[in-house]
Amino acid sequence: AHHNHHHEGGDGASSEGRAATGERLSEIPCVINHESEVYGRVEQKPDGTEVFEWSHSYSRVYNPQGPYTPTGTFLNFELYNVEARERVKCISGTEGVPMSTQWQSSGYTYPIQIAQFGLSHYCKHLTESSPKRIMIEDGGEHQASWLEGVNTKVLRVADPMVHTNVLKFKAPESSSKGGAILHLAKIPTQNMLVLSLNLLLHGNASFSVTVEFQDKKTEVVTIHYIRSEKILQVLDRHIYYGLGEQTGWRTVTRNLLIDVHKGATSSPSLRKKFKKVSRSKLTIVSLSLHGEGSVTNITLASAEHLHHFYDAANWLLKHQDEQGGWSIPVPRKVISGVLELGAGWYSAMAQGQAMSLLIRAAHHSGDSRYLKAAVRATSLFSVNATRGGVRTYFPGGYVWYEEYPTNPSLFVLNVLDSILSAFRCMGMAEVVEVTVAWGEVDPTFVLLRCRQVRGDSSNISGDLFEDGMRSLKRLLPLYDTGWGSLYDLRHFTTHVPPNRARWDYHTTHITQLLLLASIDTDPVISSTAQRWKDYMNGHRSKHN
Amino acid sequence: AHHNHHHEGGDGASSEGRAATGERLSEIPCVINHESEVYGRVEQKPDGTEVFEWSHSYSRVYNPQGPYTPTGTFLNFELYNVEARERVKCISGTEGVPMSTQWQSSGYTYPIQIAQFGLSHYCKHLTESSPKRIMIEDGGEHQASWLEGVNTKVLRVADPMVHTNVLKFKAPESSSKGGAILHLAKIPTQNMLVLSLNLLLHGNASFSVTVEFQDKKTEVVTIHYIRSEKILQVLDRHIYYGLGEQTGWRTVTRNLLIDVHKGATSSPSLRKKFKKVSRSKLTIVSLSLHGEGSVTNITLASAEHLHHFYDAANWLLKHQDEQGGWSIPVPRKVISGVLELGAGWYSAMAQGQAMSLLIRAAHHSGDSRYLKAAVRATSLFSVNATRGGVRTYFPGGYVWYEEYPTNPSLFVLNVLDSILSAFRCMGMAEVVEVTVAWGEVDPTFVLLRCRQVRGDSSNISGDLFEDGMRSLKRLLPLYDTGWGSLYDLRHFTTHVPPNRARWDYHTTHITQLLLLASIDTDPVISSTAQRWKDYMNGHRSKHN
Ligand SMILES: [Ca+2]
Ligand SMILES: [Ca+2]
Repeated sequence: AHHNHHHEGGDGASSEGRAATGERLSEIPCVINHESEVYGRVEQKPDGTEVFEWSHSYSRVYNPQGPYTPTGTFLNFELYNVEARERVKCISGTEGVPMSTQWQSSGYTYPIQIAQFGLSHYCKHLTESSPKRIMIEDGGEHQASWLEGVNTKVLRVADPMVHTNVLKFKAPESSSKGGAILHLAKIPTQNMLVLSLNLLLHGNASFSVTVEFQDKKTEVVTIHYIRSEKILQVLDRHIYYGLGEQTGWRTVTRNLLIDVHKGATSSPSLRKKFKKVSRSKLTIVSLSLHGEGSVTNITLASAEHLHHFYDAANWLLKHQDEQGGWSIPVPRKVISGVLELGAGWYSAMAQGQAMSLLIRAAHHSGDSRYLKAAVRATSLFSVNATRGGVRTYFPGGYVWYEEYPTNPSLFVLNVLDSILSAFRCMGMAEVVEVTVAWGEVDPTFVLLRCRQVRGDSSNISGDLFEDGMRSLKRLLPLYDTGWGSLYDLRHFTTHVPPNRARWDYHTTHITQLLLLASIDTDPVISSTAQRWKDYMNGHRSKHN
Repeated sequence: AHHNHHHEGGDGASSEGRAATGERLSEIPCVINHESEVYGRVEQKPDGTEVFEWSHSYSRVYNPQGPYTPTGTFLNFELYNVEARERVKCISGTEGVPMSTQWQSSGYTYPIQIAQFGLSHYCKHLTESSPKRIMIEDGGEHQASWLEGVNTKVLRVADPMVHTNVLKFKAPESSSKGGAILHLAKIPTQNMLVLSLNLLLHGNASFSVTVEFQDKKTEVVTIHYIRSEKILQVLDRHIYYGLGEQTGWRTVTRNLLIDVHKGATSSPSLRKKFKKVSRSKLTIVSLSLHGEGSVTNITLASAEHLHHFYDAANWLLKHQDEQGGWSIPVPRKVISGVLELGAGWYSAMAQGQAMSLLIRAAHHSGDSRYLKAAVRATSLFSVNATRGGVRTYFPGGYVWYEEYPTNPSLFVLNVLDSILSAFRCMGMAEVVEVTVAWGEVDPTFVLLRCRQVRGDSSNISGDLFEDGMRSLKRLLPLYDTGWGSLYDLRHFTTHVPPNRARWDYHTTHITQLLLLASIDTDPVISSTAQRWKDYMNGHRSKHN
C-alpha cells in the first residue's frame, strides 16, 4: 500500500504512514486503546469541529535491529515506496531517478527524494528475500525466439566493447513498421515486472514493452523507451519515456508496473482505465526492438534493488556541485511571506541522506569516488544558513543543521536526528567502532582518504557529529510537549503557533532517538524515547 | 470558598482555584464545552486511569481593569483568601501575619505568603464596598456597659501617651477569676467578626473573646490573647494566641472567624465540632479584660483590610536583612535529590511580591521607609543563584529570576511575569507613566530617593525590567505546548518530564500576559495570550 498524501517536504525520514482523519468525535468512543497498535487522539479541524485522529499501523516505532552499523539498513526505509508516491511524476529514463512534482508541476530532481529512493532500495536489498529473476536473452546461453518483422534482422555476436555476447538488431525506426518482437506470454514471468537490460541504441532506435492489464475489461498499453530528453509523454495507448540522447552502452532498469502507473496517471484518457493497476493484474505481452542497436542481459525480475540504488548513487556523484552540495532548483515557501527560500537552496537533509547513501555505495562497491563525494558533502555543514549553507545556531551557541535553512531558523528535530546518523555513517567519529562495521573497506584507508579529500587532518565529520549531538541532547526537551512532540521550533523563532508533530512524525522521532540511543548512552535520549512511546499509549507528563 | 489543596510553593500568583479530579472518563461525555466558562481535558492519574479534569469557575482569565497602575490592584489578588488556606497554621498574634506549615509543621514565616496576604487585603480594600464597622468603646463618645467581676475595676481617662481617652482596667490575671466583661449579644454585630483595638498590657494581662458556633449543636469557645511568644495553644475549649512579650501601646486586629477556625483545626477534640464554622453561624458572646492594662478604640467590623495590609508591610520592613532580602528559613525540595535548596534561600517571588506590596504601602502612606525597602529588595536580582541570589541565565544570555534558585534552574514562567510587574511597580522604568499613576507621591522625589538609597544614579529597576522583558519575549514560546502551557522549563534543565501547568496556572499565565501586554505591545505577548485563551476553548495549534 502506498500513501499518496505523504508530504515529502518536511518529512525527511518519516514513515510512509499518515494518520486518517474525518471521523466525528461523537461517532466513536473517546478511549485510548492500550493493547493494540492503533493510537489516536482528539484533534480539532480548522472549522472548529473535533475529530478523533487514528494513527494507523504504519505509525509504528521501529526498534534498531541489533547494534548500529553505518552500512546496514537506514532507519525503517525498507518500508518506503518512494516511486509510488503521487508527487513522483515518474522515474526518469535518462538517469533512473524519481522526478518530483511537489513544488513544480513540470517535474524536477529533488535530492532528498532521490536519496530516499536509493536508500529504500538498499534497505529492501538487505531485508527482502532474494528476488526471482529470469534471463530472457544474453546472446549466448540464453537465446529467446525473436520474430523478425518487415525489414528486420537480428544476429548474435561477441561485442568487443562489453566483452560479452550481444543481440544486434536492425529494423525500421518506426515502431508501427516491423521490429524484432519477442512474445512473452508463454514465459512464466508472473510478478516479475522489473525489466533490466544492457543497451546500445543508434539514431532513433528504441525498445518497447506491451503490457496487458486485466480488471473488468482487458486494457493494453505499450511503453516505449526512446532516445529523447523528454521525460514522459503519452499518446493514446502509447507511453514514451526518454532515455536521453547520449550514445554508448548503458544499463537500463525499469519497473514496468511503476512505468505503466505513472504514464497512465499523466494521461486524462488512461487515468480512469488504469486506476487500480497492480502487480498481480499486469502481464507482459511482448518486448520489441526498433531501429539499429545492440542489447544483452535482458532479464525480468521481481526486484532489482541494487540497480535502483546505484542509479541514485550515480546521480548524486554526477550532480554534486563545487560546494559539495545538491542544490534544489525550485523555491520553497515554508510559511508564505515569513519563511521562504529562493531556488538553488541547499538542505541539510539532502546532504545528510546523500551521505548516508554514498557511504553505503562506497561500502558495497569499494569505489572510493562515493566516499570522496560523501566527504565533500560535509562542507555545507560549516556554512551558515545566512550565507547559503545549512548551519544555524540556537541561543547559547548550539549548532543545528537545517532541512530548510530559512531565516529565522526552523530547528526541525528529525532532520538533526537523520544527520547525526549520517555523520556517524561517515565513520570518522569513532574509528574503532567503524572498524568492526566497515567490513570490506579498511577503516584506516577510509579515514586517510577523507583527510586527503579535505586537504587537512581535522576530523570534520567527528566534529560535526559531536557538535550536533551536544545540541540534540541539550535542546531535545524543548520538543517535548508533555503529551507529544513538536516537529520544529518555528514558534520560538517566528512566534507562529507551535508546529505539533502528527503521529507518524512522532513515531519517526522515537525511531530516530532509539537509533541514536544505540550510539550515545546519555539518558536524556533513551528516557525521552521511552516517554514519547508512552505518549502513544495515552500517557501524559504530570501537571503541577 | 477556600481550596485547601492549593499549593503555595510553586503557585506565586496563581488564582485560588484548583481543578477537581476523580470522575471517570467513562462516566462523562468527552466533549469540550465551547459556551460556558467550564473547561476541562482528559488527564491521566498516576495509577494509569483516565479522568476528565474540570476546571471550575475560579480558573478564569482576568482581563486588566483599565490601564496599568503600579498602585492599583495586584492581578486578581482580591479573590485570594490566604489566611483560610489549610497550610496557614494561623495569623500570629505577635505580628499579625500568617504562619506557614507547608514545609515545616511547627510553623514559620514565609515571605511569599505574607506578601500575598498583604496584597490580597490591599486589593480587597480597593475593590470591596466599604466595610460595616461599629465602635464598641473609645473611652469617650462610645462607652460600653462593662460588668466588673470580683476584684475588678474599670475607669475612663485621657492617656498622655496616645493622646486619646482610654479604658483602664484592673482585674485578676486569671481569666477564671473576675475580669471586666462586656456582653455583646444585644449589640447588632452580625457578620462583623473582625475585632480591632488599641491595647496596653502589663504583667500577664490579657483579653479574651467568647464566641458561639451554631450548627447541629451550639458550641462555645473562648479565644484568649495573651502576653506570650507562643503562637497558638489550645486547652479544652480555650484557644490561646500569643501577642508577644513586648511592652507599650499597640494595635491588634483579629479576624475572629479565622482565629476560631485555626484554633479548632489545631485541636483534635475541637476539630470535628467546628468543622463547618462559617461567618453566618458565629456569634460573639462577650469580650473580657484580665490583669492590668488600658484599651481603646474597640471596634467590630466586617473587614479591616488596611490593618492586615500594614501588618504585612511592617513585617517586611522589620525583617528585611542586610542583603535586602527575606530569606526562607526552611529547606525546600523541588525534586528530591535533584533540585533542593537549603534553609536560608531567597526567592525572586518573595522579593518581587514584597516590592509590589511595599510600593503600595509607600503610595498609600507616603512613608518613604517602605520605598527604601522596596529599592533595597532589588539587590538580590543582580546576584546569581549559584551565589545565593535569585538570578540565572538561559543559554544565549537571557536573564531569568527564580522563585526557587536551584541549580540547575527551573525557569518558572509565572514568576518572571510577576516580577516584571513588580519592577514596573518600582516606577523607575518609565518615570513619565509613573507620574500619572503615582498620585500622592511626587515621582521625581521617588526616583531621587531610589538613587540615594542605592548610592548611584543607575536605573536599576529599569534595567531589571528591560532585561527580564527581553527574556520573556524570547523564551515565552518555549512554554507553549500547542494545547496548553508549561509551568517551568525543568525538563530542559534536568531532563525530567515536562511540568505541564494545570488549568488554573494556565489561566494565571494568561492573566499575567494580558497585564504585561498593557505594558509592552510586542505581538508575541498578546498573540500568545490569545492562543492560550483559545486552548481553554478546546483549540489546539495545528499539527503538520
Ligand atoms: Ca523532510
Ligand atoms: Ca509560586
